[in-house]
Amino acid sequence: MSMYVVGHKIPDSDSICGAIALAYLKNQIGEPAIAARLGELSPETAFILEKFGFEAPEYKTSYAGEEVYIVDHSEITQAPDDIAQATIVGIVDHHKLGDLTTSTPLECWIRPVGCSNTVIKMMYDFYQVKIPANIAGIMMCAILSDTVIFKSPTCTTADIRCVEALAEIAGVEDFKEVGMDMFKVKSAVEGTPARDLVMRDFKDFNMNGNLVGIGQLEVIDLAVFDDIKADLEADIAKLKVEGNRHSVLLLLTDIMKEGSEMLVVSDSADLTERAYGKPTVDGRVWLDGVLSRKKQVVPALQDAFQKV
Amino acid sequence: MSMYVVGHKIPDSDSICGAIALAYLKNQIGEPAIAARLGELSPETAFILEKFGFEAPEYKTSYAGEEVYIVDHSEITQAPDDIAQATIVGIVDHHKLGDLTTSTPLECWIRPVGCSNTVIKMMYDFYQVKIPANIAGIMMCAILSDTVIFKSPTCTTADIRCVEALAEIAGVEDFKEVGMDMFKVKSAVEGTPARDLVMRDFKDFNMNGNLVGIGQLEVIDLAVFDDIKADLEADIAKLKVEGNRHSVLLLLTDIMKEGSEMLVVSDSADLTERAYGKPTVDGRVWLDGVLSRKKQVVPALQDAFQKV
Ligand SMILES: [Mn+2]
Ligand SMILES: [Mn+2]
Repeated sequence: MSMYVVGHKIPDSDSICGAIALAYLKNQIGEPAIAARLGELSPETAFILEKFGFEAPEYKTSYAGEEVYIVDHSEITQAPDDIAQATIVGIVDHHKLGDLTTSTPLECWIRPVGCSNTVIKMMYDFYQVKIPANIAGIMMCAILSDTVIFKSPTCTTADIRCVEALAEIAGVEDFKEVGMDMFKVKSAVEGTPARDLVMRDFKDFNMNGNLVGIGQLEVIDLAVFDDIKADLEADIAKLKVEGNRHSVLLLLTDIMKEGSEMLVVSDSADLTERAYGKPTVDGRVWLDGVLSRKKQVVPALQDAFQKV
Repeated sequence: MSMYVVGHKIPDSDSICGAIALAYLKNQIGEPAIAARLGELSPETAFILEKFGFEAPEYKTSYAGEEVYIVDHSEITQAPDDIAQATIVGIVDHHKLGDLTTSTPLECWIRPVGCSNTVIKMMYDFYQVKIPANIAGIMMCAILSDTVIFKSPTCTTADIRCVEALAEIAGVEDFKEVGMDMFKVKSAVEGTPARDLVMRDFKDFNMNGNLVGIGQLEVIDLAVFDDIKADLEADIAKLKVEGNRHSVLLLLTDIMKEGSEMLVVSDSADLTERAYGKPTVDGRVWLDGVLSRKKQVVPALQDAFQKV
């Protein structure tokens, strides 16, 4: 029986590239594995797969009775809906430890680094499996994406060394240029429906019993949002109601200015005040230096909900 | 600030030896760490530490405000009572994934092998840190204990190779003899109060909302229990009431005959029938081939509770 290797809902490049890279590794060590995905590819991920000659992993949402290797999270809300009927055989991740549990022993490769693909590179090293050039390419891009080309505070020395090694294997001379090409693709938001943009990199979190959705759009210039910000705000308000959420936040991240404008709809008017010491004005607040949802946005928010 | 490295409540040899071995490794790589323990040493563990010249780790039950590296479990019920006020920086384990969660990224070294110390050996290899002879000795003993000298179904090739490598480093010629010496110490139950025996290796599990305590005593001949079995049964009945537990099970494991007699007090009269297909007679049932609580007792029980 093959295991499925699958990232989180609303997959980002780390989830998709990680599923492909880990499924390849598992097959090489005699454990049959199939890469899968829980949702559509983002334009950035499509650009990466196209660049290195990969098809999208199998679209599959139901895993009852299957063996599953989880990539890039350990949260029930981000896992397949029927994950409780599946057997989780492993988790590779770089986030806080979530609420997934198992009834049998498993392997967990979880490290406090910038990207799951950095951990997958450690797995290749552990098993002494050679990384093919095209797989090195997509792993490298996933790390450049998650670390915002090393600008994110989540980026570690391990991530940088890993990108350098992968670029060499992939035959990429200037990986920063590849990174900028990726973020240019990501910045092309014109003509895309607001809902598609909001959902492009959207995660739900359970914060002390409250459902909180947080989206993020990383671009090289926030001016691309000037004409559509009102639409985005109307859409996250809808999303809050539809999903019975306590709050929906959308981070508009300027990777060159290195900060984020946060759009907020919430049942708590003082949420950003309590979490970040800055109130919203008309549902918006600029958070200087904030690039990382995981490291700079979620923990403070989680603390704010603990104190309620 | 030093982190504390600590195993589970009612520590076994894996928890104690693992805390010492991992704290040493962390200090070697520039991360100050102190080995700690949540309870008394068992006679087996005392024998191991004595044999290789170690003091018991620091006895410490409160960790609020501290950084903690968890060894040999990932369960709230087995962690320090105030673990929610601590920062979990890592977990090394070989059990099912439990309900501990964190609000910040961490490292998890979890593998489906027979002992946490086998995983700690992988960490030494990863960081390329040399294992001192006496630390190799206690790690080796922890693996021999958890795998019942390789007889347990939880034992993997990785555990066997690891013991072989550690025995060489420790300068131990016949590790099976050391293992038998350990189990002889473990088999000396005469004159020990029933409660001390029941609690010697006792773990609480949350099974679908029900608290289930499971103790285990591994000996080289079940005859040692002939005169005290009634006392043990009276004591687990008390323990059930005191802890408001749904069930308390005590496994009397014969490592030479390779099977366990299970003593049962439970709110469900047909619990072993549903979990293992065998009813109790006068609160006792012989489970042939059953050596491992983790692999052969807990999963079937968990399934039985799911179906209620
Ligand atoms: Mn990631
Ligand atoms: Mn153990």
